[in-house]
Amino acid sequence: MASVLILMGSQSDWPTMRNAATMLEELGVKWEARVVSAHRTPDLLESTMREAEQADVRVVVAGAGGAAHLPGMLAAFTYLPVFGVPVQSRTLKGLDSLLSIVQMPKGVAVGTLAIGDAGAANAGLLAAQVIATTDPEIAQQVKDFRLAQRDKVMKNSNLEL
Amino acid sequence: MASVLILMGSQSDWPTMRNAATMLEELGVKWEARVVSAHRTPDLLESTMREAEQADVRVVVAGAGGAAHLPGMLAAFTYLPVFGVPVQSRTLKGLDSLLSIVQMPKGVAVGTLAIGDAGAANAGLLAAQVIATTDPEIAQQVKDFRLAQRDKVMKNSNLEL
Amino acid sequence: MASVLILMGSQSDWPTMRNAATMLEELGVKWEARVVSAHRTPDLLESTMREAEQADVRVVVAGAGGAAHLPGMLAAFTYLPVFGVPVQSRTLKGLDSLLSIVQMPKGVAVGTLAIGDAGAANAGLLAAQVIATTDPEIAQQVKDFRLAQRDKVMKNSNLEL
Amino acid sequence: MASVLILMGSQSDWPTMRNAATMLEELGVKWEARVVSAHRTPDLLESTMREAEQADVRVVVAGAGGAAHLPGMLAAFTYLPVFGVPVQSRTLKGLDSLLSIVQMPKGVAVGTLAIGDAGAANAGLLAAQVIATTDPEIAQQVKDFRLAQRDKVMKNSNLEL
Amino acid sequence: MASVLILMGSQSDWPTMRNAATMLEELGVKWEARVVSAHRTPDLLESTMREAEQADVRVVVAGAGGAAHLPGMLAAFTYLPVFGVPVQSRTLKGLDSLLSIVQMPKGVAVGTLAIGDAGAANAGLLAAQVIATTDPEIAQQVKDFRLAQRDKVMKNSNLEL
Amino acid sequence: MASVLILMGSQSDWPTMRNAATMLEELGVKWEARVVSAHRTPDLLESTMREAEQADVRVVVAGAGGAAHLPGMLAAFTYLPVFGVPVQSRTLKGLDSLLSIVQMPKGVAVGTLAIGDAGAANAGLLAAQVIATTDPEIAQQVKDFRLAQRDKVMKNSNLEL
Amino acid sequence: MASVLILMGSQSDWPTMRNAATMLEELGVKWEARVVSAHRTPDLLESTMREAEQADVRVVVAGAGGAAHLPGMLAAFTYLPVFGVPVQSRTLKGLDSLLSIVQMPKGVAVGTLAIGDAGAANAGLLAAQVIATTDPEIAQQVKDFRLAQRDKVMKNSNLEL
Amino acid sequence: MASVLILMGSQSDWPTMRNAATMLEELGVKWEARVVSAHRTPDLLESTMREAEQADVRVVVAGAGGAAHLPGMLAAFTYLPVFGVPVQSRTLKGLDSLLSIVQMPKGVAVGTLAIGDAGAANAGLLAAQVIATTDPEIAQQVKDFRLAQRDKVMKNSNLEL
Repeated sequence: MASVLILMGSQSDWPTMRNAATMLEELGVKWEARVVSAHRTPDLLESTMREAEQADVRVVVAGAGGAAHLPGMLAAFTYLPVFGVPVQSRTLKGLDSLLSIVQMPKGVAVGTLAIGDAGAANAGLLAAQVIATTDPEIAQQVKDFRLAQRDKVMKNSNLEL
Repeated sequence: MASVLILMGSQSDWPTMRNAATMLEELGVKWEARVVSAHRTPDLLESTMREAEQADVRVVVAGAGGAAHLPGMLAAFTYLPVFGVPVQSRTLKGLDSLLSIVQMPKGVAVGTLAIGDAGAANAGLLAAQVIATTDPEIAQQVKDFRLAQRDKVMKNSNLEL
Repeated sequence: MASVLILMGSQSDWPTMRNAATMLEELGVKWEARVVSAHRTPDLLESTMREAEQADVRVVVAGAGGAAHLPGMLAAFTYLPVFGVPVQSRTLKGLDSLLSIVQMPKGVAVGTLAIGDAGAANAGLLAAQVIATTDPEIAQQVKDFRLAQRDKVMKNSNLEL
Repeated sequence: MASVLILMGSQSDWPTMRNAATMLEELGVKWEARVVSAHRTPDLLESTMREAEQADVRVVVAGAGGAAHLPGMLAAFTYLPVFGVPVQSRTLKGLDSLLSIVQMPKGVAVGTLAIGDAGAANAGLLAAQVIATTDPEIAQQVKDFRLAQRDKVMKNSNLEL
Repeated sequence: MASVLILMGSQSDWPTMRNAATMLEELGVKWEARVVSAHRTPDLLESTMREAEQADVRVVVAGAGGAAHLPGMLAAFTYLPVFGVPVQSRTLKGLDSLLSIVQMPKGVAVGTLAIGDAGAANAGLLAAQVIATTDPEIAQQVKDFRLAQRDKVMKNSNLEL
Repeated sequence: MASVLILMGSQSDWPTMRNAATMLEELGVKWEARVVSAHRTPDLLESTMREAEQADVRVVVAGAGGAAHLPGMLAAFTYLPVFGVPVQSRTLKGLDSLLSIVQMPKGVAVGTLAIGDAGAANAGLLAAQVIATTDPEIAQQVKDFRLAQRDKVMKNSNLEL
Repeated sequence: MASVLILMGSQSDWPTMRNAATMLEELGVKWEARVVSAHRTPDLLESTMREAEQADVRVVVAGAGGAAHLPGMLAAFTYLPVFGVPVQSRTLKGLDSLLSIVQMPKGVAVGTLAIGDAGAANAGLLAAQVIATTDPEIAQQVKDFRLAQRDKVMKNSNLEL
Repeated sequence: MASVLILMGSQSDWPTMRNAATMLEELGVKWEARVVSAHRTPDLLESTMREAEQADVRVVVAGAGGAAHLPGMLAAFTYLPVFGVPVQSRTLKGLDSLLSIVQMPKGVAVGTLAIGDAGAANAGLLAAQVIATTDPEIAQQVKDFRLAQRDKVMKNSNLEL
């Protein structure tokens, strides 16, 4: 299994969550992505986390929308760090997803990223940063990414009407 | 086991959830209440629902606050109807609890009541109404409760400065 | 009359509320749907509920948007369990519908589902779950639906860039 | 019956709604106040409005909190103008009351005032303004009230640390 | 001048506010509509209200969006009843308009309607209801409108999949 | 008249708005504070701004709560820069005040500060910063204030359990 | 360097922020616009502000979206007045941008404008108003703009169905 | 320096942030806590992060309230993973803090925890979980903590009226 396991509640979350995969790919971190639904396949929560712990998974990234229980339930079933991505919901625009993921009670933690695509990409980045704390190669990749991003902003930064 | 199983994420939810118990008591419905935490005792979710299904439980009432995953996760593990009570949270006053409980995806349902004490009492009432659909004695109790409540409003309904 | 009576405030709510009907159809539960407006036909509220109680209706499902008073007013006129569906409103995206339905005072209960299509489908599902508590055939349908839904998630659950 | 009928969903709304009565008293408009609950005494809605129409009631003022259905339901049962006061609710601070009252669908109108005491006082004032459009004496009272209020602001308007 | 004066902050509010005019037209009430901006033509606020008071205006209907100050400022300059319509704003969907209009302090009242088209139509209806309290012809028009609206709901109220 | 004119809708806003005065005092900027109500003394809006323009006022600071129209209306009547302070309201905690002040339409601007005491203090600070752009003495005062504030943070910045 | 420095977090903010430039252009105030990202080029924050202070910049206008830190961080690094523009974000429609910009703690101030295009235009207007306090030519331009805007409203202000 | 560096915008955040310290203490992870203000000591942001990177810091935990820029700005200045804690603000109850921290743009990530005490404790827990991914001793501590927490829930989980 890969260093980062990306899970989501539904295949319809993939257009959002693939941003996590793309970021990890760019940073040279191995990943794997699967659909596991807190509500429709609740019996897979525990076994998926056991499997992840026994393989070389370092970080779990989980995305869900609406009453988004997946990240918190995964965190309840594992000792691995879990990062949650609130997927934008149709009616409340992801405010429900955000509050359902971030407002965890004391004792079970989910590090929550922004709603939608940016949040998914940043979940991948943050996972890489965690791995980078003990892996100098990934650390270099993260630094290079940040510098490249800085350069992109600075190029053509002047604006005209 | 009783007809209605009242579950909550933490002992600190009992001051809210006891309103469900009191209402059921008043309507002559047998109940039982326990702490089961979606996050701290996730392995009990499935077994508690199995036990409830094998006993004579007709309705599950579940209360939780913040990123309130308990009602939705119980619903994911059972075929029994689940009614959810958003417990008032400290910072966001239960708006997080409400959205975490009510915004369930298609395929797993939680009938959600109002935030706080009134919602807990009404979860008990709604559970009794479900039982009343096939139990004439409880049906009579519900009708009597509603009439008594109507009388209380009508008595001294005129107001003076 | 059918086991589940689906009511809505306006014909324009039908595209949402038909999800309740479709779900009940799929689960083998008889239903009937009508427009009854809390505001434009208030005199029909009581008579519709009396009629439902005298026929074999077990559950009332009611949807409305904006200042959504229909579910709560039906609940005020009947002893049958009422499940409410917040229909998505144009400006506030159903947050007004949700709060108008769910925040009922102590003594009259509405089990509220999610905003929009998912909520309507789940209102049908929850109604079937209520009937299933005393009807083994419907119980089996609910179980089959849940298993089929689980299988659908598990098939092709791996995702690739 | 008085010119303005003040109705509220519960005796616990009186501390808020008495501000309407006090304002009407101050402006010389006759009022009467009663508890009528949309949910607990729904059968009184229509009869109360019939009675009001047959007496000399010119304006109905209605206050309620949470899923506040009273003003809208009264408006559904009468041709008299109805002004609604969102009573501050415990958890959501009256935002639920406000949206439940103001977001009425086309065809049944409620003129909504601010949440809480100020809104109740202003409901009384607005009712008086309606009556003032055909009653020169009340018109003078309204003008005097406004002038007195202006004077009070202007007196000692300079502030020192 | 007409019985109802419809004012709005910008010509871009007319697609919303014309619903008030259409409703008044339908109910046989004379109206007149103008653009007066609280922010861009503040000096017209007082003179417009003086003119309205001296003509036969009975009710002022005012619509505005965003930091919507027009209804409240008109109310500050007149003794006539003012009904406010929150026009849907681009970013916050009219929640800003609603709060800016409805949350008036004690002593200056605005009867606020729903956000957008429905609210504008209802502002016209409520204005007609005010006039109807002393004008039997308009009263009959309002009653006829309500009955016609009731009939429309009841026709074809049954729904099929 | 002073360099900065502090206006507020009610004497009850003074406990908040005095923070603006205290900050200006600390920065050596002359100020004057008065109650002018957009709703209760609307005729004073224009004359107060004329008077301010003719005296040596450089910046207007205005605070109000709820449907807070004062800052925007002052801005409508003057060419001087206006900074607005949303005073915390009782029910909606100043969210209504904030949106009523900040969401101004194109063409009339209010620079809005944070809700409550911090916002009032910062309105004073920002007014001083405006004056400082052409007054070296005030500029020095602002710099000194910022350095002193920095020193206060750095002193004893280490924390122990 | 120009009198007003317009900064934004990303080139994608330019369609919004160009409204500030257009307004300044219209009012005859010199401006310059650049991309500086609080998060991607944090090391440029201080140097950009030092450069601005040493040139003849009078006002900084800064726009950003989401967790919008740019205006507040610029304000932390300069004594010049900073006006902030909340750029509309995709999911939360700029409510996050607004709160991130306006809710500054005591001691570092950002004068915040409305979300989106109107806010950007008004940031330019407010900057011009600041300059106008000591520059009679710009003052005249501001007055002319306001009069022209008033005329535009008054022309064809009557509306017909 | 310790494994986890806890930073906060103000000494007044310590009552919240000490929950992170207490949790780390309980889990046997070395920590250090300091006040660094994004707004009042912006020049310390970069140097503090450089110092942390050169010492053995593995994770940065940062708390701030209102327009909470500290966590995002620290993340902008470092490659270490940053976890953010929204401190409860006085008026908006931490909703502003939450959105200011969590809604980071793509490219700079902050793993955000719940508002207030629970969030601070969980930031400590999540930091320990990150360290535990390569430190078996801390991993055991985390597991023991979770088991102890599970036991506490299960003891006396039955509730009586």
